[in-house]
Amino acid sequence: MAEQPTRDDKFSFGLWTVGYNGTDPFGGPTREPLDVVHVVEKLSELGAYGLTFHDDDLFAFGSTDAERQNQIDRLKQALADTGLIVPMVTTNLFSAPVFKDGGFTSNDRAVRRFALRKVLRNIDLAAELGASTFVMWGGREGAEYDTSKDVRQALERYREAVNLLGDYVTDKGYDIRFAIEPKPNEPRGDILLPTVGHALAFIDSLERPELVGLNPEVGHETMAGLNFTAGIEQAMYHGKLFHIDLNGQRSIKYDQDLVFGHGDLHTAFSLVDLLEHGGLAGGPGYDGPRHFDYKPSRTEDETGVWDSAAANMRMYLLLKERAQSFRADPEVKEALEAAKVLEIAKTTLNEGESYDDLLKDTSAYEDFDADAYLNGHGFGFVRLQQLAVEHLLGARS
Amino acid sequence: MAEQPTRDDKFSFGLWTVGYNGTDPFGGPTREPLDVVHVVEKLSELGAYGLTFHDDDLFAFGSTDAERQNQIDRLKQALADTGLIVPMVTTNLFSAPVFKDGGFTSNDRAVRRFALRKVLRNIDLAAELGASTFVMWGGREGAEYDTSKDVRQALERYREAVNLLGDYVTDKGYDIRFAIEPKPNEPRGDILLPTVGHALAFIDSLERPELVGLNPEVGHETMAGLNFTAGIEQAMYHGKLFHIDLNGQRSIKYDQDLVFGHGDLHTAFSLVDLLEHGGLAGGPGYDGPRHFDYKPSRTEDETGVWDSAAANMRMYLLLKERAQSFRADPEVKEALEAAKVLEIAKTTLNEGESYDDLLKDTSAYEDFDADAYLNGHGFGFVRLQQLAVEHLLGARS
Amino acid sequence: MAEQPTRDDKFSFGLWTVGYNGTDPFGGPTREPLDVVHVVEKLSELGAYGLTFHDDDLFAFGSTDAERQNQIDRLKQALADTGLIVPMVTTNLFSAPVFKDGGFTSNDRAVRRFALRKVLRNIDLAAELGASTFVMWGGREGAEYDTSKDVRQALERYREAVNLLGDYVTDKGYDIRFAIEPKPNEPRGDILLPTVGHALAFIDSLERPELVGLNPEVGHETMAGLNFTAGIEQAMYHGKLFHIDLNGQRSIKYDQDLVFGHGDLHTAFSLVDLLEHGGLAGGPGYDGPRHFDYKPSRTEDETGVWDSAAANMRMYLLLKERAQSFRADPEVKEALEAAKVLEIAKTTLNEGESYDDLLKDTSAYEDFDADAYLNGHGFGFVRLQQLAVEHLLGARS
Amino acid sequence: MAEQPTRDDKFSFGLWTVGYNGTDPFGGPTREPLDVVHVVEKLSELGAYGLTFHDDDLFAFGSTDAERQNQIDRLKQALADTGLIVPMVTTNLFSAPVFKDGGFTSNDRAVRRFALRKVLRNIDLAAELGASTFVMWGGREGAEYDTSKDVRQALERYREAVNLLGDYVTDKGYDIRFAIEPKPNEPRGDILLPTVGHALAFIDSLERPELVGLNPEVGHETMAGLNFTAGIEQAMYHGKLFHIDLNGQRSIKYDQDLVFGHGDLHTAFSLVDLLEHGGLAGGPGYDGPRHFDYKPSRTEDETGVWDSAAANMRMYLLLKERAQSFRADPEVKEALEAAKVLEIAKTTLNEGESYDDLLKDTSAYEDFDADAYLNGHGFGFVRLQQLAVEHLLGARS
Repeated sequence: MAEQPTRDDKFSFGLWTVGYNGTDPFGGPTREPLDVVHVVEKLSELGAYGLTFHDDDLFAFGSTDAERQNQIDRLKQALADTGLIVPMVTTNLFSAPVFKDGGFTSNDRAVRRFALRKVLRNIDLAAELGASTFVMWGGREGAEYDTSKDVRQALERYREAVNLLGDYVTDKGYDIRFAIEPKPNEPRGDILLPTVGHALAFIDSLERPELVGLNPEVGHETMAGLNFTAGIEQAMYHGKLFHIDLNGQRSIKYDQDLVFGHGDLHTAFSLVDLLEHGGLAGGPGYDGPRHFDYKPSRTEDETGVWDSAAANMRMYLLLKERAQSFRADPEVKEALEAAKVLEIAKTTLNEGESYDDLLKDTSAYEDFDADAYLNGHGFGFVRLQQLAVEHLLGARS
Repeated sequence: MAEQPTRDDKFSFGLWTVGYNGTDPFGGPTREPLDVVHVVEKLSELGAYGLTFHDDDLFAFGSTDAERQNQIDRLKQALADTGLIVPMVTTNLFSAPVFKDGGFTSNDRAVRRFALRKVLRNIDLAAELGASTFVMWGGREGAEYDTSKDVRQALERYREAVNLLGDYVTDKGYDIRFAIEPKPNEPRGDILLPTVGHALAFIDSLERPELVGLNPEVGHETMAGLNFTAGIEQAMYHGKLFHIDLNGQRSIKYDQDLVFGHGDLHTAFSLVDLLEHGGLAGGPGYDGPRHFDYKPSRTEDETGVWDSAAANMRMYLLLKERAQSFRADPEVKEALEAAKVLEIAKTTLNEGESYDDLLKDTSAYEDFDADAYLNGHGFGFVRLQQLAVEHLLGARS
Repeated sequence: MAEQPTRDDKFSFGLWTVGYNGTDPFGGPTREPLDVVHVVEKLSELGAYGLTFHDDDLFAFGSTDAERQNQIDRLKQALADTGLIVPMVTTNLFSAPVFKDGGFTSNDRAVRRFALRKVLRNIDLAAELGASTFVMWGGREGAEYDTSKDVRQALERYREAVNLLGDYVTDKGYDIRFAIEPKPNEPRGDILLPTVGHALAFIDSLERPELVGLNPEVGHETMAGLNFTAGIEQAMYHGKLFHIDLNGQRSIKYDQDLVFGHGDLHTAFSLVDLLEHGGLAGGPGYDGPRHFDYKPSRTEDETGVWDSAAANMRMYLLLKERAQSFRADPEVKEALEAAKVLEIAKTTLNEGESYDDLLKDTSAYEDFDADAYLNGHGFGFVRLQQLAVEHLLGARS
Repeated sequence: MAEQPTRDDKFSFGLWTVGYNGTDPFGGPTREPLDVVHVVEKLSELGAYGLTFHDDDLFAFGSTDAERQNQIDRLKQALADTGLIVPMVTTNLFSAPVFKDGGFTSNDRAVRRFALRKVLRNIDLAAELGASTFVMWGGREGAEYDTSKDVRQALERYREAVNLLGDYVTDKGYDIRFAIEPKPNEPRGDILLPTVGHALAFIDSLERPELVGLNPEVGHETMAGLNFTAGIEQAMYHGKLFHIDLNGQRSIKYDQDLVFGHGDLHTAFSLVDLLEHGGLAGGPGYDGPRHFDYKPSRTEDETGVWDSAAANMRMYLLLKERAQSFRADPEVKEALEAAKVLEIAKTTLNEGESYDDLLKDTSAYEDFDADAYLNGHGFGFVRLQQLAVEHLLGARS
């Protein structure tokens, strides 16, 4: 039986997640908005440690300064009352009509300037609230038609924006890092930086790459048919897993934002195993917030909202238990060995071996028996996967 | 009427493309193998300028040195007789049983060493034949199950291999650059470096990143639901479009390798426009080989093989004509202006403007009328796209 | 040059299409609602012949009888003033919170009864307005989780509802047929009757199958990776193409509702060819409304709305022209013959031939040379497709 | 702990499944062929009850009568020796070059006649071996291009063929039913009868629909992004689940044929629950063979082949256990009740109620409080799903 969530589990939720009112492309709200103080209190009760938000979640777009400040104060008091923290803040550059062609990369330069100002103001708020991560999801940065957007120039504007933000937090001395959240499409036909890979490459082009990493989301990579765990491993390889969005998605379709584990369970298992234990052949895990970016189904009332919030944490803890039993199983260890899964950590060349040495090693080529791999040298991957599935199903613990 | 292909068009074909015998997962060959000399002669007649190949296409895996040399000599003679060149060579690390878990990243270290040797030998051949690009498609570098492969360690092995190859060509003084070809899946459940973005990020981690770029393939990005033209623009943004594989793919499914333009026509149009004319708001086009990596449908006999080869070139030339008329149309220019497509090339900040200056510019935020974008400031993207489609359809020329 | 649209082209638009205000899952409206009278006038000017609507498009959910009647009267006057007709009416059983688990198949029986009443009332209105087709899109009939819905029972409730509606129109003497619109997902995780095929099978189970056919939508089948033209051909095969929704969709992703022809152009071409000319080897075309169910992109203002409406009709007429030139081309005829495309219309058995006769025909099996198909008997499909593409591109007219 | 498989579990395997030699589009065999006698012995040892095959699996295409008979005799002896049965037989109309454009619907009439003869001969064999189901997978019946195939005419040829086969088994008095296996694509670009729905609709058009049902395959429906369990429920609704192909597929991509349960686990769970227990709100389960149509991964040697065969059965039995605990849990029963999952079985109209009665029932419409569904009447679907997942994970047993 999995334990109850505690603050040490570092579970955080977006205000827009439990606060989702049920609006979708074919229907309006099925729930009233939730007040931020109520959300903080409920999340605290359920065992979360953090709340995150977009500026527009806390105070509506176009709020007066007084309205804005009132909401900030109310949030601060609720945090103080409960002990919850704000580990991450993000800016909404996608809902208002002004952002209909994006924020940082709108074709309309005046919009780009407005977007920058909106983000700068929100970074100040993030710093004030002690958030250490500032997420940037550029959901409107994209196009429906290839004629609408010069992608190279748009990337250059994106870069201009992120460079400026990097200068800003550096000069201000803010202890904040940025995390870009990739998504392939929806709401735009094609979004800039569509996958973990594209965003990693973009980051390498920045003036302060060390300040910028990723916030990958389970559902977004799944919408491109990509293996989320593999994507996270590449993000870790480049040292760029700054934050993570956990949720569920079933196959390639609209963005479902289901409860974590209610999508692809094999991936959820291997992901938790990776975050908790690091790579199968070595390498560290992940120490940051376990952030749920999901939507309570539109069919639910407020009871369902909190049931679904609890389900996210429960799924994570259950999968953590199963990953622990998987790692501890001697038969698994033997099967990993047999499948040479650990041998991948061994360098291909011997220490100090040059390509000339390799070229002289006849055992590597001239005398190597490639034919022995026909009808032989099976890897035993299916057996290993079956062991993993049985642990996932609680059938070997 | 599009002109006939000439050498100046830089059309090249893989030996394995016209040579495809029709084998697929549910059926054996429908065509006999084609001899390389015959292929060179036919491609030359049809107007191509180049032939490319995997080592195993030219001489079967496991050939003796004499068999190998004989085939190389026959190829060289055919090139001399026709004037065709070999602009690119690549290595087969995916067909033989020994590579069933990959080449550079097989869990089996002996396989990794064998793979390196096979590639080194083939690089020598590439240099001998004057090829300037060496493509690496790691189609077997991947896994079906997350338990089978430690992705971080596998990327480290991939990196070890490419670093070694970079040293090799540098030391040898070969005028060769490497081009990685991403693919999301098939034949593996998930392949390492699944998209243009992931490969770009990997390249940035190499010791000699300047030697390594991309060989993106239309169908491969399409299999991840990604916009190919946008991907190429990002590759160009990072200076990494070293080579390109043109073909056709219809939606997210198995790798179809159709004739170029027989897949998504809008993308084919915007791609040719980009390669030929550069970005809509500036930036150069592409000057390298137009390489067709397609398969003549299994339903065809040899006549169909050559018809399909010709169709690839014909499609490119037709699209080039239509892109020219699109660029030359004054109404298109006006519509691009109206949609602010060119304004994206203008920096968001004024020259010399700091974030402090921006923060002081009340016109950017305090006095900016965001509400005017509701019911106003439409971009006119649909009109612009319709103009493009009409050029594509030859309806405005 | 394609002609201007006329009433004879039978182009119709949903009130919700041009009236779409830009709301999507990540943003609110970018346009104000359009008044129905204005819409009728504009569509008339542009050359459309029909307007269609959901009840809630014309009068908001929960309107008083007086509000409802006022809107109906205003619509009628506009129709009388312009000569536009209402060829189709449909009911909104998906937007209001009450339908969050569907209408006809909500788990909540009271909702199912309410839904039936809403539809019955709307059928009376459809009859009053002279609509001959009543579309049923069950977009909320479905589930996110297999545990939420007993699909067999839900289909039985669906059937109960449609049977009752069939009795109703029959008893009332209404000249109305029903058209079911399939969709695989969005807004539900999985929708009942997800494809043309599933809906066809369901119709066969009804008490009055002759009253019920299909309203297939380009984008919906494309979202399941299915070939839309092939689906329409099967619908026609079963005599069930009662209505059609034309729009554009690019690959498997959220429902894009682009302008017709701004999605897959090859499919758009073959579809218009089929609707206008019937099958390549015979069989009739389609004579009903060409109904556009699309959304003007959220980036557009009202000018863009009407530009996009015009673009739909323009695309259809351009494709019609190109299909005519394709059919008239002697080389196409020869290529169709060579590819045996017409031979499929010939029965496999001779007239009067029994299976015993076939079993005795040694030319069919014992003496048949199956080996001749290796390296021979190519079909020439690629050449034929290339001819079609060249007609599509206006390169052979 | 799940029990060991027994004959009562009705597990069957295709000869081509364990016999798969590893060939795929990018590589040749990694395993030698397995002899049929060896396969029968091994499957018997592992607990299977049945073997199925295509004619060409048992004796190569083009075998002499003597070669064919020898293999049949060897199979019969092995069956007699082990007690295994042959519950299903199917015909290969897709591998040989002669079928490159299909069998029953090839454009080439001579091929269609040859295909019919091949099937008739194989039906005699099926009857001789006591098979009660004859599967028809028309994997080559389709096209890459819309110009290649007149789909309506092709469906008419398909119908002609199936009608003839129906006559044949009826006249011969064979106790055999046909089961059509749908697939959306691969190896053809688009395949006729692409989904469960399309095949169901086709069956309704046959002369002897009672003789023809479905053999749906997990992976095939998943390749169209469709919910497999929902598809099976519709097949059952129409009384057409004649046979079933169990395997695993991860998302929309090439046909993976993984071990059952190594694809989408939620679907595998709900499927086994349905087959074993019937619908959540009533309706029978499935009593036929549990047939595994999978491929042992190409990375495996023969040990991996048998490990993977055992894994299929083990997964089924584990899921069966978990479904039993799900059904038995009082909290699940309460949650199903709360979510009104059972209420869907109640007719929408009262017994004997007419639409006139419904129209008079003001509680159904005029007095119905639709607004109460905003912020109220939540269904509790997420809680119910979470309970299911916890049973799946063995966390509540």
